Amino acid sequence: MERNYTMMTDLYELTMGQAYFKQGKENDIAVFDIFFRQNPFGKGYGVMGGLHEIIDFLKKAHFTDADIDYLRGKKLFDEEFLQYLKTFEFHGSVYAIPDGTPVFANEPIVTVKAPLIEAQIIETILLSYVNAGICYTTAAKRVTEAAGEIPIMEFGARRALGPDTACMASTYAVIGGCVATSNVLAGEENDIPISGTFAHSFVTSFDTEYEAFIAYADTYPDNCILLVDTFDVLRSGVPNAIKTAKYLREKGHELKGIRIDSGDLAYLSKEAKKMFDKAGYPDVKICISNGLKEHTIHSLKAQGAVINSIGLGDNIVLPDQARVGCVYKQVALKSEGKYTAKIKASNDEAKAITPGYKKVYRFYDKETGFALGDVIALHDEKIPTDTYTLVDPLNEENKTTLTNYNVRPLQETIFKDGELVYEDPSIMEKKEYCTKQMETLYPEVKREENPHGYYVDLSLELLDLKKRMLRAAKEQKVEYDK
Amino acid sequence: MERNYTMMTDLYELTMGQAYFKQGKENDIAVFDIFFRQNPFGKGYGVMGGLHEIIDFLKKAHFTDADIDYLRGKKLFDEEFLQYLKTFEFHGSVYAIPDGTPVFANEPIVTVKAPLIEAQIIETILLSYVNAGICYTTAAKRVTEAAGEIPIMEFGARRALGPDTACMASTYAVIGGCVATSNVLAGEENDIPISGTFAHSFVTSFDTEYEAFIAYADTYPDNCILLVDTFDVLRSGVPNAIKTAKYLREKGHELKGIRIDSGDLAYLSKEAKKMFDKAGYPDVKICISNGLKEHTIHSLKAQGAVINSIGLGDNIVLPDQARVGCVYKQVALKSEGKYTAKIKASNDEAKAITPGYKKVYRFYDKETGFALGDVIALHDEKIPTDTYTLVDPLNEENKTTLTNYNVRPLQETIFKDGELVYEDPSIMEKKEYCTKQMETLYPEVKREENPHGYYVDLSLELLDLKKRMLRAAKEQKVEYDK
Repeated sequence: MERNYTMMTDLYELTMGQAYFKQGKENDIAVFDIFFRQNPFGKGYGVMGGLHEIIDFLKKAHFTDADIDYLRGKKLFDEEFLQYLKTFEFHGSVYAIPDGTPVFANEPIVTVKAPLIEAQIIETILLSYVNAGICYTTAAKRVTEAAGEIPIMEFGARRALGPDTACMASTYAVIGGCVATSNVLAGEENDIPISGTFAHSFVTSFDTEYEAFIAYADTYPDNCILLVDTFDVLRSGVPNAIKTAKYLREKGHELKGIRIDSGDLAYLSKEAKKMFDKAGYPDVKICISNGLKEHTIHSLKAQGAVINSIGLGDNIVLPDQARVGCVYKQVALKSEGKYTAKIKASNDEAKAITPGYKKVYRFYDKETGFALGDVIALHDEKIPTDTYTLVDPLNEENKTTLTNYNVRPLQETIFKDGELVYEDPSIMEKKEYCTKQMETLYPEVKREENPHGYYVDLSLELLDLKKRMLRAAKEQKVEYDK
Repeated sequence: MERNYTMMTDLYELTMGQAYFKQGKENDIAVFDIFFRQNPFGKGYGVMGGLHEIIDFLKKAHFTDADIDYLRGKKLFDEEFLQYLKTFEFHGSVYAIPDGTPVFANEPIVTVKAPLIEAQIIETILLSYVNAGICYTTAAKRVTEAAGEIPIMEFGARRALGPDTACMASTYAVIGGCVATSNVLAGEENDIPISGTFAHSFVTSFDTEYEAFIAYADTYPDNCILLVDTFDVLRSGVPNAIKTAKYLREKGHELKGIRIDSGDLAYLSKEAKKMFDKAGYPDVKICISNGLKEHTIHSLKAQGAVINSIGLGDNIVLPDQARVGCVYKQVALKSEGKYTAKIKASNDEAKAITPGYKKVYRFYDKETGFALGDVIALHDEKIPTDTYTLVDPLNEENKTTLTNYNVRPLQETIFKDGELVYEDPSIMEKKEYCTKQMETLYPEVKREENPHGYYVDLSLELLDLKKRMLRAAKEQKVEYDK
């Protein structure tokens, strides 16, 4: 039976739902923003992901009879509310930044404007999708940026936290710049390139490494890449690969490459290359794998390692600091035809949100095309196209006036009153779009260490609203019987 | 359409498969071990998870016609092999340590004995399931051990890397000791307790915090837990909660509790408790949440924080160092009726594996019931029940002789020649089993800092085999035309 993901919600979405329902608030229109508070991995940028799955989910959201029966059994909900859930579908609007777009902390990457109860019920799953999508796309983009011209294949499905998230990882890895994935299901479902040759177990399945190599070469004479580190790279693997190259050449084929998956990859790749050159096989390509990261790729390049391609898994499917921490916060509520901005203040200043139904704009230098910064404004503000003054929300004395710019809104309309109005590009189109968008970021924003902080500012009108609302929230003091 | 997880495999499993097929090796029986190389989170133990999903997967493994068509389109596979895949199902045997059992680095937690091609094709998904299951169960166990008598509810679905892995996290969190999850789908599918009240957005959906509290209290008068940190815990949230408690009491109900989700939880919980006590509501319970970890729980307790329950998400569904890194290594191959042990040596000593078709045994002190250590032995070795000498594989001079012990094999037979022979316990049974098993570990093994290393030793026969095979692999030197 296919899983009903509408039930992948936190129970409190439903308990709140019933309370709203009883208060006659089911037709109030709420505006919620999804944003993250710090850029992924503590670096300079994130890359949007997860929208594809959100679209797919919202099209189908509903509760089955079995779901309703299960909920009835919890003895929390009355029949009236259960009947409401039975007819549940998504009637709201969704504005989102497309998959593959560079995104930054505190900007609304998705805005949901929907009947209050609907907006609550979809919260949990929307967050889990963007948290995964942004994690994977950003992780892939970071390593592919580090690798530059060297193609990276994503090999990490086995290290992912289960098969479904593995498929998301493989797919967003391609959007984030990988040339292929080893994950066959992700390939089948998304029409993305798949790649793979063989594992150490293939070698140990034969009496000798050479026998295994010949068996593989016989099966794939024109697409033969040999894994050479099962026993000893330079004393066994590469010599056997050279013997296999000779065997193939005698039959009119050329050995395509080798893969090294353990040991000192810099040293071994250089020595292997020398051995192939000397033996008359200078075109054999070297693929390396084994827990590579952004900084190990930089380091291997600096050491002059011979790398024609990279297989990389762990650090895309489950990178360090994988928690993107997207949150979903109510920012406005339309009751009786009028939007009221909403804020959560909290004792924890860092957790205060930016209120209001908003849009986010990106400013580009007209000459160079580089992105200058983003501005979050109220949804009905006009953004001037000639001169704009950016104000740092943390220090209002810090101002920059922009003149020679192009500006564009980042969010697209995805759903309009429940209807899907967005044509979601293919994965390969998203990959190309992502590459182009990344080119608009200054290298200083993209670097690994101490990246330059990309500007995400609030319009003056919005900044003023936030300050007023925070002040009012802080001044609140409730009297009670002590 | 339901996803066919059999396709969630790495392409190389299939390219290897075809090469085996062409070599007439499809009936060779391979033995593969799954193990991890370091205990999760760099601590003293892991807890088994993922077996439930593995069973479910292996029962149904197959390729659909659409899958075969997709693979045909890749132009890598010939018709004969595609026809073989069309009839593919799992005919092998699986021996595994049950979910909820404490497990340790380098021991075979799952052993697959199956026709070579089948054993390869299932590798990727089996690994992704145990990597997820062990991560989540261990993470939950670590925080529930730290919390002791204080119940923990798992609230993390939104922070997980997608909805499916969220459901695994919620389920294994309960096995690992959580009393409930907020994840409704996990509750529905696994018959585990669900819990939840309301979010900050509920408060901001009303004109005032007090209105929101009353709306919630009216809906759930006997199950009312109020979130008090939307504006200011001590000046607004708690005073409004006290007013609500009074409102409820006047109607014959008692306020059940409050939840604090931000700010200084130690200070705020103590102050809130004082305020409730003083106002005449000493039975109001305090639930805390907000990124809690093992050491913050210890610290809050040390500070005398008032905590009746904990909501905890991030650090179960996506803990730091979430990569368990389980691997799947060929350890033996039966060809023409005889098992041959297999090894991968590699230039990287740490990546060398323990060869042979093996079993793992746990020794318990007969008096105290504490686990003394595990021994990995060849599958047909007899383990004496009176005296046994443990030998440290890294230092053979380091020996311990055990006498007064009980010993049991840890792996259960799950599948026997393709047939499921294991009755998988319910999640709540696994939870209870896990609690009991954890009681057999010395506190020194369980502590957070510098845990005592639990013994995982090799039988002398196995150690000897491993040393001989490693030596032989290292002595291999292949001559070739330079």
